[in-house]
Amino acid sequence: MIYPKSLQKLIELLTKLPGIGPRQAARFAFFVLRENGNFARDLSAALQNVQSQIVFCTQCFRSTENSGKALCNFCGDLKRDMALIAVVEKESDMQNLEKTGIYGGVYHVLGGVISPFDQDSPKKIHLKELYTRVSSLLGANKKCEVVLATNPTSEGDTTALYIERVLAPLQDKSTNLKISKLGRGLSLGSELEHVDEITLKNAFKNRN
Amino acid sequence: MIYPKSLQKLIELLTKLPGIGPRQAARFAFFVLRENGNFARDLSAALQNVQSQIVFCTQCFRSTENSGKALCNFCGDLKRDMALIAVVEKESDMQNLEKTGIYGGVYHVLGGVISPFDQDSPKKIHLKELYTRVSSLLGANKKCEVVLATNPTSEGDTTALYIERVLAPLQDKSTNLKISKLGRGLSLGSELEHVDEITLKNAFKNRN
Repeated sequence: MIYPKSLQKLIELLTKLPGIGPRQAARFAFFVLRENGNFARDLSAALQNVQSQIVFCTQCFRSTENSGKALCNFCGDLKRDMALIAVVEKESDMQNLEKTGIYGGVYHVLGGVISPFDQDSPKKIHLKELYTRVSSLLGANKKCEVVLATNPTSEGDTTALYIERVLAPLQDKSTNLKISKLGRGLSLGSELEHVDEITLKNAFKNRN
Repeated sequence: MIYPKSLQKLIELLTKLPGIGPRQAARFAFFVLRENGNFARDLSAALQNVQSQIVFCTQCFRSTENSGKALCNFCGDLKRDMALIAVVEKESDMQNLEKTGIYGGVYHVLGGVISPFDQDSPKKIHLKELYTRVSSLLGANKKCEVVLATNPTSEGDTTALYIERVLAPLQDKSTNLKISKLGRGLSLGSELEHVDEITLKNAFKNRN
């Protein structure tokens, strides 16, 4: 070990960040050292702030500033359609959905996906809470749509399928529940020559 | 802006880390949120420790734990040859040199390279200090070797050439100063088919 102990400790912690190996962690640590004190102080304070001030919305599980309210600014926004729920894997997936500007509903952040290799994964994500949320909406005799906006990957598709099955009993009981999925087809800028078969098949199926 | 303010602030700070864009910074921030408090607290403390406890060796400019001594544990180690100085661009370059186990000298960390696009770059690196260090060794009538261990890149080579010129007057005055460079040739595991011409030329020149 040729680095000083406290630097080594910082490098070890930075190595835990997703996708960061020891070399890049060392680069980060030396960057922190070079930036004359302010950066380390600001980052240290920001980390503490996040830890103390961020809570999760009790309805959609988005992170939100702790303001004493149980709901985030989306779930508490009366202009949004509370009966239109987009189910996403993680919070960062919401950003692009919001940017489109055409979505006026609310969200449900699963906080993960269902993995065939992890039998406990259905319990690790906020699935039970989704069931409760939807059934209480239906209980109030409201028309309700769940948009499964998981990623078009095998894990995302598995998760969507699993959610459909979980919500199926609710759908049997009430005609008020609609379950939909994001459309599949060609992405903007892709070339037919390089597009995979499944995407092309979907594009044909969904032609209009 | 759909993320809470304190989370957004953390993401902005993380974006300043070398090679990190807004998406990866967001991934880091959500990782910090998910790790139940301990990680943020530890990282925050480690950042503060680094800032308060790390100083730079006044001789070789390595980072070192603040112990009241002016020299790092290499420069203060009497078993090391103080008249054999490896000049490196940055501290992380030392790690591999140390790992070889064959180097028993000391170091001089430049803290950067000379760039033809930045006229001030010779002043930004610890070059003057290298000159003073070498001339005081020669003044004490000691035999002294400077190993230019900059990277084999165009910037590294420019820097090595510049240092050679800076030290040339000292070499003219004294036969005690030797300036050397790391050998060039084939790296282990490389294939002749894919090796570039300059490397191959160097390998021919340095055959033994």
